[in-house]
Amino acid sequence: MAEPARTRRRPWREAPSDRARVRRIPERGSYDRGAADEILDSSWFCHVGFVQEGRPFVIPMLHARVDDTVYLHGSAASRLLGLGETEVCLAVTLVDGLVLARSAFHHSANYRSLVAFGLSREVPANEKETVLEAFSEKLLAGRWTDVRAPNEPELKATSALAVTLEEFSVKSRSGPPGDEEEDYELDVWAGVLPVEQRVLEPIPDPRLKPGVQLPPYLR
Amino acid sequence: MAEPARTRRRPWREAPSDRARVRRIPERGSYDRGAADEILDSSWFCHVGFVQEGRPFVIPMLHARVDDTVYLHGSAASRLLGLGETEVCLAVTLVDGLVLARSAFHHSANYRSLVAFGLSREVPANEKETVLEAFSEKLLAGRWTDVRAPNEPELKATSALAVTLEEFSVKSRSGPPGDEEEDYELDVWAGVLPVEQRVLEPIPDPRLKPGVQLPPYLR
Repeated sequence: MAEPARTRRRPWREAPSDRARVRRIPERGSYDRGAADEILDSSWFCHVGFVQEGRPFVIPMLHARVDDTVYLHGSAASRLLGLGETEVCLAVTLVDGLVLARSAFHHSANYRSLVAFGLSREVPANEKETVLEAFSEKLLAGRWTDVRAPNEPELKATSALAVTLEEFSVKSRSGPPGDEEEDYELDVWAGVLPVEQRVLEPIPDPRLKPGVQLPPYLR
Repeated sequence: MAEPARTRRRPWREAPSDRARVRRIPERGSYDRGAADEILDSSWFCHVGFVQEGRPFVIPMLHARVDDTVYLHGSAASRLLGLGETEVCLAVTLVDGLVLARSAFHHSANYRSLVAFGLSREVPANEKETVLEAFSEKLLAGRWTDVRAPNEPELKATSALAVTLEEFSVKSRSGPPGDEEEDYELDVWAGVLPVEQRVLEPIPDPRLKPGVQLPPYLR
C-alpha cells in the first residue's frame, strides 16, 4: 500500500509524546502516519478508552478515517458526549498469525496495532451526513448512493465523535519465531499459523424484495 | 456450546453494577456468565483500559480464562504492575458480519462483545508457570508439553496479571437487518455479509530442524 505524500513529508522517527512511546520491545514500534493509516483503514472498529469519575471504560466503536481525523460511531458516543471534550485513547489490533517457537517463552503473535491519544469532540449537525457517508463508504464502497439517505430525525438520533490523529504509536511483529540459539537443535516443530479475517458469501435478507439483484459492489 | 453448570445456577438477569449496565439498545445486552466465557474463550486477546495520571490508556493483551479469573499477558503488564492493584476495563469484540439495510441509518454489524471491570493484581511467582500453561493451551491445545518449558530467568522476565470476572456485560447482535417498514418496498439489496476469522496452513520456520514433522495437534 503506497504511503500518502503527507507521511513522506513528515516522518516521525521519534515518539510524539511520552505516553505514546513504545516501552516494551521498542524496536517493534514506529510513529509513522502511513502505517497508522493502514491499520485504521484495515479495521471496521476500534476500542475507545476514556475516564469517567476516575475509572477506565473501554467500548468498541465503528470508526472511519478522513485525512488526519478519526470519526467514531457507536454506543459510547452518547455516553462520551455527556463528558464534553474528553481525552480518549483509541486502539486497533489486527492479528496476522500465531508464532510457535521451540520454547514456551518465545511464543508470540504476529500483529499490527495502533494506539492513539486525543481529545474527542462532537461532530456538528451540519457535518453528520458527510461523516456517515465516510462510514458507509469504508464499510462497503458504492453502498452509500444505493440506499435510502438518512432523514432529519435519523440524523438527529446519530451521535458521532471526531479525534485528530496526532499522538500515536504503531507496533507490529511479523515473520518466524525468534528462539534461543541452543533451542534450534530441539526436535520441536516451529513456525507460524497465519490468521486472516475474511468476508463470506452475502446472505440475502429473508424479506428481500423479489427480483432485487446483488449489486455489482457486492459481487 | 453448552453453558457451564455454574452459569445455570447463577443467572444474571440484572446488571451487576451501574457502570456495567448496557445503556444503548439494552435489549442487546446480557449479564450471563456462559455468554461472557464463550466470548473470552473465542478470542486470543482483549483490549485493557486503565487510568494513569488521570488519562485513559488502552493496550492489547493476550488473555486466558481459568474459571472466573482472566489472566493477562502483554506489554501493558509491566506498565500496570507499577500502578499496584489497579482498576481495569477489559473489552473483547468479535465481528460476525456486516448488516446491510435498505436505509443508511439501519446499517449495523453482527457482533458479540464483552466489557468487564475489575481490579488487576499481579500473578505471584509460584503461580506463573500454571498461568503460562493456561495461555499456551488456550492458544493451541497440546503445545505446552511439546515445547521447552520456561526456565527461571524466563519466568522472572514474565509479567502476568489476574482480574476476577464479576462485573461485566455482554452485548450482541445477530440476524438480518431491521428496516423501517416502508423501506422494505425499496429496490435495494439487503442482507448480511458474514465475516469470519480463520487459521490458515502452518508455515514452517525457515530454520526448522530437518526431519521434524508437523505435530498431530496442528494437522
